[in-house]
Amino acid sequence: MIITLKKEAPEKEVEKIRKNFEDKGLRVNMILGEEFNVFGLVGDTAHLDDRAIMANEWVENVQRVSAPYKLANRMFHPEDSVVDVAGIPVGGKSPIVIIGGPCSVESEEQVTRIAEEVKDAGGCMLRGGAYKPRTSPYAFQGLGYEGILDMVAARKKTGLPIVSELMSIDKLDEFEENVDLVQIGARNMQNYDLLKACGKLSKPVLLKRGMSATIEEWIMSAEYIMASGNPNVILCERGIRTFEKYTRNTLDLAVVPIIKEKTHLPIIIDPSHATGDWKYVEAVSLAAIAAGCDGLIVEVHDHPESAWSDGAQSLKPLKFKHLVDRARPIAEAVERSVR
Amino acid sequence: MIITLKKEAPEKEVEKIRKNFEDKGLRVNMILGEEFNVFGLVGDTAHLDDRAIMANEWVENVQRVSAPYKLANRMFHPEDSVVDVAGIPVGGKSPIVIIGGPCSVESEEQVTRIAEEVKDAGGCMLRGGAYKPRTSPYAFQGLGYEGILDMVAARKKTGLPIVSELMSIDKLDEFEENVDLVQIGARNMQNYDLLKACGKLSKPVLLKRGMSATIEEWIMSAEYIMASGNPNVILCERGIRTFEKYTRNTLDLAVVPIIKEKTHLPIIIDPSHATGDWKYVEAVSLAAIAAGCDGLIVEVHDHPESAWSDGAQSLKPLKFKHLVDRARPIAEAVERSVR
Amino acid sequence: MIITLKKEAPEKEVEKIRKNFEDKGLRVNMILGEEFNVFGLVGDTAHLDDRAIMANEWVENVQRVSAPYKLANRMFHPEDSVVDVAGIPVGGKSPIVIIGGPCSVESEEQVTRIAEEVKDAGGCMLRGGAYKPRTSPYAFQGLGYEGILDMVAARKKTGLPIVSELMSIDKLDEFEENVDLVQIGARNMQNYDLLKACGKLSKPVLLKRGMSATIEEWIMSAEYIMASGNPNVILCERGIRTFEKYTRNTLDLAVVPIIKEKTHLPIIIDPSHATGDWKYVEAVSLAAIAAGCDGLIVEVHDHPESAWSDGAQSLKPLKFKHLVDRARPIAEAVERSVR
Amino acid sequence: MIITLKKEAPEKEVEKIRKNFEDKGLRVNMILGEEFNVFGLVGDTAHLDDRAIMANEWVENVQRVSAPYKLANRMFHPEDSVVDVAGIPVGGKSPIVIIGGPCSVESEEQVTRIAEEVKDAGGCMLRGGAYKPRTSPYAFQGLGYEGILDMVAARKKTGLPIVSELMSIDKLDEFEENVDLVQIGARNMQNYDLLKACGKLSKPVLLKRGMSATIEEWIMSAEYIMASGNPNVILCERGIRTFEKYTRNTLDLAVVPIIKEKTHLPIIIDPSHATGDWKYVEAVSLAAIAAGCDGLIVEVHDHPESAWSDGAQSLKPLKFKHLVDRARPIAEAVERSVR
Repeated sequence: MIITLKKEAPEKEVEKIRKNFEDKGLRVNMILGEEFNVFGLVGDTAHLDDRAIMANEWVENVQRVSAPYKLANRMFHPEDSVVDVAGIPVGGKSPIVIIGGPCSVESEEQVTRIAEEVKDAGGCMLRGGAYKPRTSPYAFQGLGYEGILDMVAARKKTGLPIVSELMSIDKLDEFEENVDLVQIGARNMQNYDLLKACGKLSKPVLLKRGMSATIEEWIMSAEYIMASGNPNVILCERGIRTFEKYTRNTLDLAVVPIIKEKTHLPIIIDPSHATGDWKYVEAVSLAAIAAGCDGLIVEVHDHPESAWSDGAQSLKPLKFKHLVDRARPIAEAVERSVR
Repeated sequence: MIITLKKEAPEKEVEKIRKNFEDKGLRVNMILGEEFNVFGLVGDTAHLDDRAIMANEWVENVQRVSAPYKLANRMFHPEDSVVDVAGIPVGGKSPIVIIGGPCSVESEEQVTRIAEEVKDAGGCMLRGGAYKPRTSPYAFQGLGYEGILDMVAARKKTGLPIVSELMSIDKLDEFEENVDLVQIGARNMQNYDLLKACGKLSKPVLLKRGMSATIEEWIMSAEYIMASGNPNVILCERGIRTFEKYTRNTLDLAVVPIIKEKTHLPIIIDPSHATGDWKYVEAVSLAAIAAGCDGLIVEVHDHPESAWSDGAQSLKPLKFKHLVDRARPIAEAVERSVR
Repeated sequence: MIITLKKEAPEKEVEKIRKNFEDKGLRVNMILGEEFNVFGLVGDTAHLDDRAIMANEWVENVQRVSAPYKLANRMFHPEDSVVDVAGIPVGGKSPIVIIGGPCSVESEEQVTRIAEEVKDAGGCMLRGGAYKPRTSPYAFQGLGYEGILDMVAARKKTGLPIVSELMSIDKLDEFEENVDLVQIGARNMQNYDLLKACGKLSKPVLLKRGMSATIEEWIMSAEYIMASGNPNVILCERGIRTFEKYTRNTLDLAVVPIIKEKTHLPIIIDPSHATGDWKYVEAVSLAAIAAGCDGLIVEVHDHPESAWSDGAQSLKPLKFKHLVDRARPIAEAVERSVR
Repeated sequence: MIITLKKEAPEKEVEKIRKNFEDKGLRVNMILGEEFNVFGLVGDTAHLDDRAIMANEWVENVQRVSAPYKLANRMFHPEDSVVDVAGIPVGGKSPIVIIGGPCSVESEEQVTRIAEEVKDAGGCMLRGGAYKPRTSPYAFQGLGYEGILDMVAARKKTGLPIVSELMSIDKLDEFEENVDLVQIGARNMQNYDLLKACGKLSKPVLLKRGMSATIEEWIMSAEYIMASGNPNVILCERGIRTFEKYTRNTLDLAVVPIIKEKTHLPIIIDPSHATGDWKYVEAVSLAAIAAGCDGLIVEVHDHPESAWSDGAQSLKPLKFKHLVDRARPIAEAVERSVR
């Protein structure tokens, strides 16, 4: 960590700051500049708080040299983590997983029917929302536990592992028991109590990036789950919020090489929320695979025009199959395959 | 609600859509254009989901004419709401409230000492964090219940009502019993289970705007609390996330006249998080009052350089007093006063 | 165009507005709602100014149904435009073009040497900046006309057509005479006098998206060039500005299917400025091709560490060759080829 | 400047980098860390290019300690600059200037009539656009030179100095001769050839912040004008582009204390473009004055509903007078006055 001190800092104050760091077991090196003086801290700085240091009136600037995450950091864990989802490996050199399913579970019949279509098209897991984070309190809030049971029934019928969103700590046991991959949504990426609770799960966690989260904050949220006891985290980019209006969000595909460089965790892409429009889903899905992602999670509905939520961004099964079919040669072109 | 249909939509499909709306009790008017046809829906459209309508392949565009919020909407509640916080009225023509206190409660002694300074300087409520949402799992997470009790002790000593952040539904009773104004932080603005739980509180709620929440989404989150049974919501702007790097966030002061126009709820400003730098806190605080806000919530610490969090943006008591003193003539200039 | 009027608008005012539109040759249809009244305008609304209409105090909202661009609009020009760059076709089903070269031209020797490397690696055009838009007035501003002549020499030696940025109208003749594809940079995307001047060129124009331009504004800037007489416009996405700090900009790849849907113009991607880091250039380049773009423009330098500008995002020739080699199978997978 | 080197950098490479800096007359200090090594450069680093240094593969990070601007930097010019606009001082302790006028000049009669209203209301300068940067090539592009002459006539009649936007270097003489304060618009903030040309003017320049310009980039653009010979620069904040949709832009008022801290230049605020809606203009104007700005530039039109541009954000003269009248006590409350 590099700390810049104001040139006019009194020697007494500089000594106090230096001593403070040394008391924490850090070694302090100093550079005397013409306009500023600089401290270089050597040792484990992960527990230091940049902004707390900034609070000292004689400090001009603080710059972290090593990343603030440890468990997720590739530097300390050079091999790719492969996360097991009910027997399906995700990450590393494993085949790319394509997850499909409706935004909302509407009934056992609906989700089972769509699950079969997803499976036939080449999807290997089923997504479906039972608890729905909706902007409006007057919008459909999901079927709740009933929806989870509908998903379980669809899994029984098709064999597809199920992915669903957990919104609250009081449903933890329900998800532990029933769900194969527990999703934390964008709106809860910094709901730290929920992240800590996920550390207690034996099931893997799919952590979506927050709408305006930096990549570093997102990795720190993964670190929360990992530090709480659960190493099985899959990251999921779903677009960030920008000024652009033609898409619902702006898909940030540079995250793929960045996550691969900075962490050892798998990364999958959600093209449906990223674009908000089914017409653009296939193009960005192919792009995501070419960029090197480990999977896709795609909204699929057989009657989008009467879906209870997010129909506008859902692919019909035939279009989903088209996507999977086109994904295969792209995967091969980057020395991967589609599961 | 205005729905634009593609010109090439087959008559049969158009009729199906029209019937669908009529079945929901809405009246449908139609405009035949050269390039598009348009439906105008007359009736209560609050329960319709824009994106669900968009899912129909013959729909080009959906535009909501009336706002999606009802309880918070000034149209249906023309008078200002005045929210009572332990006897102190907030909003309407009430005096402006200035809330001060440390980012984190560090001990009973610390928070009581600062509370006295806040009171002496002219502050009328005490803020303090006992449960802290921190980006890093390795950073100080707050004293928890002990911190709440420290705040209670400070209230006993000074008479100042206390404001603290609730992060999880399992602490609801603790806050109902002890805290005068329950804060929902920016990171939890769309933690809907938490919002619904706040609807059960008898205590008023201070709802911070999410880092990348639109004003409409923010009002919808207030609507969640109100629709769940608690009408006592105070909104709090704390800056939004942009590309600018010289400040922690970008303070959006246009929200003051907008919130006053669109809702009847009180609005206060957090200049500390908005700027992230104590040097800019006074200037934007004065600006906020001139813009017409109902209060300020300011971080105050007597030793910012050793604060356990957010020292960089905390005012020392003397500077806080300077702020309050300068706020008074501004308040008068806009026909208000500072409590 | 759909115009929402306030319910309380006096009949006389409504009539005045209606008459005003009818005088402009538009047909006006009306919907009477419970909370609002709505005008639907039928006819050519491209010349109307949304914000001018909004200025009327009785108008609540204005929504454009048809796009504000005409010449660039695929609706009126269904076939892909193929733009000829010194004999190389760009767009439609033409092979994907990969353009390489240094950020800044440093000397005839340097640019010729790199041009040869680009050609050997499989690039088909040479980029190079002679006039450089630099944030600092103290930074290297480019070799100017001398740099253009160096590019001309490199073209003579290698046969590669040359692409360079035009920053000012007083260099128009110089570019018309010497440059094969005239680039308008992100900072000048809304320098309308420069766009109009480009309408006079016989050479094609490469129009970069502005740092915070919406897709619609970007197309409107293309429309400026086209309406001024030059139909040969190639669009270039180079990343937009967001809050993310790990990359220089955020590459928005959804623009590829969107531009293909809304316009008939070719679109190429600049992965170098989009990421700002050579380590991420290959991954996003492959993604861009999978998304369906018509070309790439990549910064290449044989000694990035001593480049006069933007070395951090430049690929060494060997890495550029690796990129081109990996691009080929991706192009095939989407039924294209690389030129 | 602080440069972080990768730990694995070979000693030979480190020496090469060190020598390179020493050859440029800089002194290099070194810190040996456990994970990284750090160079501290002492001396004049303003001419170094951060990104060029980053290009070296052994460099992990570069951090500038001193600001990249010199002429605008308060560190080297501690007193406030006061800029003279046709005899009216702007900045420092001078009275606050309130500039009013139409978005577009429509005729001599119109602009003179509005100028008189502006003067009567208490405005001290006249704004008016003769050359208009419009998103659409089909929208009104301004009266051009005729509009400038209309402004000159209005000045003759009212005595108000005139402010107008310069869009192209070929109109430089026209502006030098006729205009009192030459405006550079947001879209041209990084049109560096235009900035350099403004350095040749004897007239002061009003430099608007670009839609997505950081404060640092904005100051660097002022530095361009100053380094080209014209020290008389007034900065103007007009809102930045964010995701928020209820306002046209997001007004960033923290710039007022920041510009005052980092530079010695005057700063004024444009509340009309910042909000895009006349209803919010007064509230944010008062806020801007309370924040400490040196002036306001406000769009005023007597018939906004038929203005040729931007009517939606224009105040009627009576509302403008109301704003000026309310601004006075706010100015007094911050120890200023309104001219």
